[in-house]
Amino acid sequence: MKVGDKHYRSIWDEDGKVFVIDQSLLPHEFRIIPLPTSGDAAHAIRSMQVRGAPCIGATAAYGVALALGEDASDAALHSALETLGATRPTAVNLRWALDQMRTAVAPLPMRDRAEAALAWARKICEDDVLLCRDIGEHGLAVLRSLAAQKPDRPLNVLTHCNAGWIACVDWGTALAPLYLAHDEGMKIHVWVDETRPRLQGAALTAWELGSHGIAHHVITDNAGGLLMQRGQVDVVIVGTDRVAANGDTANKIGTYLKALAAHDNGVPFYVALPHTTIDWSLASGDHIPIEDRGEGEVLSVRGRMKSGVLGEVDIAPLGSPALNPGFDVTPARLITGFITERGVAPASAEGLRGLYPERIEAQHGAVGRR
Amino acid sequence: MKVGDKHYRSIWDEDGKVFVIDQSLLPHEFRIIPLPTSGDAAHAIRSMQVRGAPCIGATAAYGVALALGEDASDAALHSALETLGATRPTAVNLRWALDQMRTAVAPLPMRDRAEAALAWARKICEDDVLLCRDIGEHGLAVLRSLAAQKPDRPLNVLTHCNAGWIACVDWGTALAPLYLAHDEGMKIHVWVDETRPRLQGAALTAWELGSHGIAHHVITDNAGGLLMQRGQVDVVIVGTDRVAANGDTANKIGTYLKALAAHDNGVPFYVALPHTTIDWSLASGDHIPIEDRGEGEVLSVRGRMKSGVLGEVDIAPLGSPALNPGFDVTPARLITGFITERGVAPASAEGLRGLYPERIEAQHGAVGRR
Repeated sequence: MKVGDKHYRSIWDEDGKVFVIDQSLLPHEFRIIPLPTSGDAAHAIRSMQVRGAPCIGATAAYGVALALGEDASDAALHSALETLGATRPTAVNLRWALDQMRTAVAPLPMRDRAEAALAWARKICEDDVLLCRDIGEHGLAVLRSLAAQKPDRPLNVLTHCNAGWIACVDWGTALAPLYLAHDEGMKIHVWVDETRPRLQGAALTAWELGSHGIAHHVITDNAGGLLMQRGQVDVVIVGTDRVAANGDTANKIGTYLKALAAHDNGVPFYVALPHTTIDWSLASGDHIPIEDRGEGEVLSVRGRMKSGVLGEVDIAPLGSPALNPGFDVTPARLITGFITERGVAPASAEGLRGLYPERIEAQHGAVGRR
Repeated sequence: MKVGDKHYRSIWDEDGKVFVIDQSLLPHEFRIIPLPTSGDAAHAIRSMQVRGAPCIGATAAYGVALALGEDASDAALHSALETLGATRPTAVNLRWALDQMRTAVAPLPMRDRAEAALAWARKICEDDVLLCRDIGEHGLAVLRSLAAQKPDRPLNVLTHCNAGWIACVDWGTALAPLYLAHDEGMKIHVWVDETRPRLQGAALTAWELGSHGIAHHVITDNAGGLLMQRGQVDVVIVGTDRVAANGDTANKIGTYLKALAAHDNGVPFYVALPHTTIDWSLASGDHIPIEDRGEGEVLSVRGRMKSGVLGEVDIAPLGSPALNPGFDVTPARLITGFITERGVAPASAEGLRGLYPERIEAQHGAVGRR
């Protein structure tokens, strides 16, 4: 999407070089960094210069292409897959992207591998852009229908964390409908949950929206309930890290609290996701593991000091410990609907199966094989 | 309560001098500051070296006593009341304490005023301590009953913001039951909501609990819902800024979200308060005004820099605006009970009237007089 007047993606190649936006400096500095080698791609993932599951996957894919550009041997391919795969141990998209690359290039003769790898990395990016764009189109229909009920004022959308273009390749998931709505001239305004502890809302979502020219306010994670009580939120749209087969939805810690408030105030609550986020093997959200992250993210806050330099401040007494669970699970009963690349469906086993009927056959097949 | 091995109050007089704890430096530095003059008392309130409604009231009362110690004339009394009254325009307790002081000393001959003012300031403090202690005793009974159901592990309490001794003179409101429980040997553990934007939980509640030796963890405001889903919260206790006659409760922004999560998970949710916090003139929470504070508190976070110096970091993009409502209103239907100095009652008009039957007579009288 736009940064100033120019359209950017989170990763791209140009004249044989790969570039990414250094997300670790956002929103304080907009810096494009080249990734000349596979090692640079691995470093970018490891140091969180790139984050967001699809963006990590795309960077890893380009990393394989860069490695094969230098040395297209089996040993080099194996080494690149190993190194890139070890950068973020829990990232599902990373592993998926590397598997795609391996499958695409390993059978080829060495002389064809580099070119094929580059083409495949581009395809992974393009596929993600199309997937997000389709999510955006279906979400746009939801927004149009809500906006028609409030013709006299901007549509107020609340979002939590960052499920925007910078986390993907372009468009994003939860934010894709907002970009399409804005671009077609719909008046929208976004309440951006700051999203402690890592502040992805204040740092990334506010930056994305501001850079694209979309009206917004940053709010603390505490404020959304009051805004809903006051009628200042027309719809909530969030992304998700994993959806169970019954529609229970894991997302950034605090999402559940907003879903409760939306439910209590009759505000529609949507989750935007591609099919790849659905974990058909999990019967319910009870089985979704919740990562406990380090206490440092809670006890300190990172930002731009008055000097302009990035730094941290400690906010709690020395000796006070913190707990830092990364996600919570919003029960399907609190979710108005899922917005996917295939359309909008109720948040239920039936709703998901209706969108992806081939999963029923696949599951029946699996049962039959047992 | 205790800081290290010594018992402190938030304000006290000793050898004719008045002392307070500089709360603006907590939790990073524990500094006791003397208030030699009425002007110093006014400055301490204005600069938020003291905060918390009862503590502000006590400081203002001592401020009047200090003024009259220098000059006991009508003019000096009037001037002190004016100056102190203008320090925090919206603080109800401040005005209440100054009215008490005026009523107590204005009728006296000049030679008796200074001594009477000091005695009255002490009485305001002692009365607050007794009020909080009584709230604590009634809350302790609630905790004992809950702990009896979980004999094998610590009782897990969640609190939001700071309603502790540092906001009062001693004990606090929401935290008073916890101090009594800890002091009698009950095993308790407290989840401390950090309470953005001003971080009173991470800064003050964690400091109070740690200083008194009570086990706790700081958590982001986003985390409490997940902890309740997991069964890691046995009870929520919060303070309040204003309670309407029907039991609707205004408290620090974000309280409503925790009340929703408690209700959704069957976790008891209590509000601790003295009778002075009940606004009998308000039929419901719809009429409680919500202060919109400046956006700076959201866009920047204050804390201790690596150098040890206190400073701020900006967390959002330049140009992104913020909205900063200070309070929300938790509907009475989500509140298990009120813990007051007279006992525990359901959060309803009937519950409140049962605790304060004299209010019914007062209201009937008022109706009769119309």
